[in-house]
Amino acid sequence: MLDKEINPDEKLAKILELELLSVNKIIRERMASKNAPRIPEVTAHLISAGGKRLRPMLTLAAANMFGCTGDNHLKLAATVEFIHTATLLHDDVVDESLKRRGRPTANLLWDNKSSVLVGDYLFSRSFQLMVEVGSLKILDILANASATIAEGEVLQLTVSQNIKTDEETYLKVVRGKTAALFSAATQVGGQVAGASEEDCDALYEYGDALGIAFQIIDDLLDVEGNLQITGKNIGDDFRERKLTMPFIKAIQNSTKSELEFWKRTIEKGNQNDQDWDTALSLMNKYQAITKTRQEAEMWVEQAKRALSKLPESEMRILLSELADYVLTRSK
Amino acid sequence: MLDKEINPDEKLAKILELELLSVNKIIRERMASKNAPRIPEVTAHLISAGGKRLRPMLTLAAANMFGCTGDNHLKLAATVEFIHTATLLHDDVVDESLKRRGRPTANLLWDNKSSVLVGDYLFSRSFQLMVEVGSLKILDILANASATIAEGEVLQLTVSQNIKTDEETYLKVVRGKTAALFSAATQVGGQVAGASEEDCDALYEYGDALGIAFQIIDDLLDVEGNLQITGKNIGDDFRERKLTMPFIKAIQNSTKSELEFWKRTIEKGNQNDQDWDTALSLMNKYQAITKTRQEAEMWVEQAKRALSKLPESEMRILLSELADYVLTRSK
Repeated sequence: MLDKEINPDEKLAKILELELLSVNKIIRERMASKNAPRIPEVTAHLISAGGKRLRPMLTLAAANMFGCTGDNHLKLAATVEFIHTATLLHDDVVDESLKRRGRPTANLLWDNKSSVLVGDYLFSRSFQLMVEVGSLKILDILANASATIAEGEVLQLTVSQNIKTDEETYLKVVRGKTAALFSAATQVGGQVAGASEEDCDALYEYGDALGIAFQIIDDLLDVEGNLQITGKNIGDDFRERKLTMPFIKAIQNSTKSELEFWKRTIEKGNQNDQDWDTALSLMNKYQAITKTRQEAEMWVEQAKRALSKLPESEMRILLSELADYVLTRSK
Repeated sequence: MLDKEINPDEKLAKILELELLSVNKIIRERMASKNAPRIPEVTAHLISAGGKRLRPMLTLAAANMFGCTGDNHLKLAATVEFIHTATLLHDDVVDESLKRRGRPTANLLWDNKSSVLVGDYLFSRSFQLMVEVGSLKILDILANASATIAEGEVLQLTVSQNIKTDEETYLKVVRGKTAALFSAATQVGGQVAGASEEDCDALYEYGDALGIAFQIIDDLLDVEGNLQITGKNIGDDFRERKLTMPFIKAIQNSTKSELEFWKRTIEKGNQNDQDWDTALSLMNKYQAITKTRQEAEMWVEQAKRALSKLPESEMRILLSELADYVLTRSK
């Protein structure tokens, strides 16, 4: 029945189509504010009906595996999307990279204040939604995920531009940036469907590993992606002095003079037009890109191992395909 | 036993001294982050042991009225202080006023990102604390307060610089800025102590009215305060084009030419050195300051009426004195 040519995320979206429509309805209703019409204005481009909705789909898929009915899983899927959007808005706030490149524009500053406050609004809406579901266990999961996200974001602030950053620290940042919300999304899906603690733990592990693989690939696309497909310039992380895994893997093997290169370009931010090519050749010299891809593959295997602990189902197969797909995605 | 010369907030702090010490301990412990040492760095000046702790004192006082024991009310007091601090951090983000006066400094921008992310961290910590208390009713109160706060902040963004802003809208902003957290603080204090719904409602009303009076007086201090005492320049709100109650009361009675003055100075932000004096004389012409003070007095009466519904106690007398004190505070 399903077209074999379409990607696993599109397959998921088809299977969950009706539920996603309900989630979109909740999102639209809860995003609206009589008092503050600016809110949908700011979020419209972030929460558009055409969005991929990957995180809410994870919640729905997990709930679906355990035969969830009612509308609590729909509320939790909307919760997860609100948290994601709020995080994106807060990430938009002018950071070091923009500062370094020159003073921000006036418009950017106005957006700063809006980004912060509308982000807070979405957080508070997500908070109301999850309280409505009425499960302290689920609230506990989401509170801990929020703390991991926030801590990871602050950690990223303090480690960017520090070439001593190691892979362990990078992993903490990645958990905060991406994996914590993926794992909370899958775990609460199981929880709200009444899955056992073991199954909920496996769902957590799946989301965690999937999120880490997803972020590693995201970072890889920045060093080897195709502008036409990703819409992102290659080398942005380098220019913004963000240390991601391929950089860390190159830096940890550096000779003394190579270390000087990284100090100048990443720590001091003193870069010229040839530096990106040098950075790329150093990453190639140490197979940093290949090794980073292997790391992502390892996390995908871990995600699939976690799935194998769960009862067999069509949804389990799809989630396994989704994990493989993360490795091949090009945008 | 208590020195009659000290203010009601100081009396409260004395009576609640031991509990406040425990709250400070929770705050210190929960603020710390192994992963992100920047956090205490950013919050140290906001959450100093010498802080006034007005909001957590309201929670403790309300809990105390109903004989609360254990440590859940201490956790909720810390929760309330974390939310307050997070809000302050997010308010710090560069806004329109700074933009208008000239480009922000580099340092200010770095602080922007830190303010946002450390604020998020404190929110997430407060969320964890309140979940630990394990009451869905309390979570519901705090979720709704969060939404009111966030909505009020966004509303403030959209109404500042709009001279058509009326008192009803101003009140919504004030509820978001100040009263929502005051009323949540008192209400959860009663709730955690097992007070009846009627008593919790009265505590909510008290906190709400107290918060509104507090904010109106804050706005008044900006137009008639003493720099030596408040540490704030008079007329900052005018220069930052923030419409508070005394301005609204003057503007709503304006002649056509006066309206032109407000349009130029507040809407267009085209101000010269004499404009503040003109603004002040227009406020005096319409008794806007006197009428604003009367409004604050009305809210204090409302706060005391709410208290009168609660069982008699020493704490009730103190909370009543605190309401009166709000009117006389000079900083």
